[in-house]
Amino acid sequence: MVQLSLSRRLRRTPFSDGVDAAGVKAYTVYNHMLLPTVFRSVQEDYHHLKQAVQIWDVSCERQVELRGPDASRLMQLLTPRDLRRMNPGQCFYVPIVDETGGMLNDPVAVKLAEDRWWISIADSDLLYWVKGIAYGYRLDVLVDEPDVSPLAVQGPRSDDLMARVFGDRVRDIRFFRFDEFDFQGRKMVIARSGYSKQGGFEIYVEGSDIGMPLWNALMEAGRDLDVHAGCPNLIERIEGGLLSYGNDMTDDNTPHECGLGKFCNTQTAIGCIGRDALLRVAKEGPVKQIRPIAIGGDPVPPCDRHWPLLAGDKQVGRVSSAAWSPDFNTNVAIGMVRMTHWDSGTELMVQTPAGTRPATVMETFWN
Amino acid sequence: MVQLSLSRRLRRTPFSDGVDAAGVKAYTVYNHMLLPTVFRSVQEDYHHLKQAVQIWDVSCERQVELRGPDASRLMQLLTPRDLRRMNPGQCFYVPIVDETGGMLNDPVAVKLAEDRWWISIADSDLLYWVKGIAYGYRLDVLVDEPDVSPLAVQGPRSDDLMARVFGDRVRDIRFFRFDEFDFQGRKMVIARSGYSKQGGFEIYVEGSDIGMPLWNALMEAGRDLDVHAGCPNLIERIEGGLLSYGNDMTDDNTPHECGLGKFCNTQTAIGCIGRDALLRVAKEGPVKQIRPIAIGGDPVPPCDRHWPLLAGDKQVGRVSSAAWSPDFNTNVAIGMVRMTHWDSGTELMVQTPAGTRPATVMETFWN
Repeated sequence: MVQLSLSRRLRRTPFSDGVDAAGVKAYTVYNHMLLPTVFRSVQEDYHHLKQAVQIWDVSCERQVELRGPDASRLMQLLTPRDLRRMNPGQCFYVPIVDETGGMLNDPVAVKLAEDRWWISIADSDLLYWVKGIAYGYRLDVLVDEPDVSPLAVQGPRSDDLMARVFGDRVRDIRFFRFDEFDFQGRKMVIARSGYSKQGGFEIYVEGSDIGMPLWNALMEAGRDLDVHAGCPNLIERIEGGLLSYGNDMTDDNTPHECGLGKFCNTQTAIGCIGRDALLRVAKEGPVKQIRPIAIGGDPVPPCDRHWPLLAGDKQVGRVSSAAWSPDFNTNVAIGMVRMTHWDSGTELMVQTPAGTRPATVMETFWN
Repeated sequence: MVQLSLSRRLRRTPFSDGVDAAGVKAYTVYNHMLLPTVFRSVQEDYHHLKQAVQIWDVSCERQVELRGPDASRLMQLLTPRDLRRMNPGQCFYVPIVDETGGMLNDPVAVKLAEDRWWISIADSDLLYWVKGIAYGYRLDVLVDEPDVSPLAVQGPRSDDLMARVFGDRVRDIRFFRFDEFDFQGRKMVIARSGYSKQGGFEIYVEGSDIGMPLWNALMEAGRDLDVHAGCPNLIERIEGGLLSYGNDMTDDNTPHECGLGKFCNTQTAIGCIGRDALLRVAKEGPVKQIRPIAIGGDPVPPCDRHWPLLAGDKQVGRVSSAAWSPDFNTNVAIGMVRMTHWDSGTELMVQTPAGTRPATVMETFWN
């Protein structure tokens, strides 16, 4: 790790005072905003996430709001996922593609009403693409970034903690659905979702001023549940196969290469800007794809650049995320592998800064 | 300062190996890429920049390339600066605005040919806006991010160093002009420009593979000139009044608020998307504007959030960048001030984390 120079350009969040007080040890930068990465240690945070409950400042999941009569039409322009049967109250994971089928972001779309959406974005200025398209198409829609900052509650005790603050009705929210709740007289959208496989919720906090009161209320209510400030955990998200835009894929990749074909309905997603470009790959499949990779040997160093995957002396892919997993006693990784070598059980070699290691293509992620 | 967690998402550059070897002490993140902020110390780097010559890895100034018959039309859509008299070989600083006149970026446009431009961007994914507009307007133009990484040579000895590597012809480049030069058989665009007031050049390095050979050649050639790895310097850029997008202005601000009215020709910039929105403010002027601010007392802490500027108990602006200047023996700062209080000599108070301090609106920046 190296030092990060702070400036106003790396935006603080409505919860930053709580994050500071909880003793954050490291950050990354995500959508021009501070995103905590370590509180106690990546391994301690990992064990705690799987056993208890954590409050995550994921304000960096900024919202792109679409509002107006053309909002739903615009949303369908952006993605090859067919949105016709999506109802208000649902969240959809939607690959966003450009006219070549390259992924520009992999957000969660939140349908608030027929004429109002939030797109809860990964790390790229999707606002610029959506505004450009809306303007170029002369759509009747307002596109902007509202003052909405998600706060995630993740871990096996999430339901208990959330019920104490928002009432038992919060337990009834189904996966990737949302409902509205009251906190100190303020309406909050709460979804059962989040960037871990340990269960939990995301609270879309509207209005920065209510951020710290909510943070404090959750911390207070969860004291005997061993609640702690946390953050997306590198080890847990790789084990769970949760992709990271910018790490595991970029605008060079189609959704199919990322294993996101199941979120594409390219035939029926009429209007989608990338539809023409994706029809062929949707039918025939990609020639390389994301795979879970196990890397042998001691814990690997941080993966801050692509590590080549080799079959003999031929490069057949690359690893883009990797970490030592204490629970599975191996290095877990996410890689992109050519179809000639992507069958599970294939033995490859991977070039890491700690030397060349054996790597195995796995059948499934570790969950 | 805090720790930064590295990952592939925070992209390394073609010069990162050189930056590492030179002992970089801290980074920021800019356009999803690592940008060094400190080598020896911010103050040591500052004195050295003003006396000698530095090599800066500013790869994070990514390029948006426009290529094709509609390239020049697209470029004019993006900015209120009139580009009709701009010739190939020129660089223009161009505010980029959306349909409301809000600034999306403040890049340098490099006109390579009538049908080919590079836009050398500040910290936002301008590529997404330009692609969205080009697609929405169905323009005949290719828009992408080429493998071009700027390397800056800055400081009073820049001409001497550059002449040793590229020949004496480099001395003839005029300010904000560029020409093509050869390095090891590779063509490089070199402009007299850069994010300091100490003079120098920016080399647009095409092809990542030639990055380290060029870095090493410059370091080798400049040994007796006291060349050192450097980076944009917080103190020097505030003294010089060089704005930083995301720090000093955002998409909330018009170019006029940023004091960039001199780069706008709103009447004649026919086609500019933000033209309608800007006509009135171009004529009547903004109600708040960027001003140089001197802050009294001891050196201020890092400015990682807006500091309110007060007249009595009324907020009349905010400071967005600040640092202690050894050469001018005061805290230098950049602020946005309402017109009621923006006259030079106006005495205000500023709320910093180190307490409330006297602040003076200055006539000019410190250069």
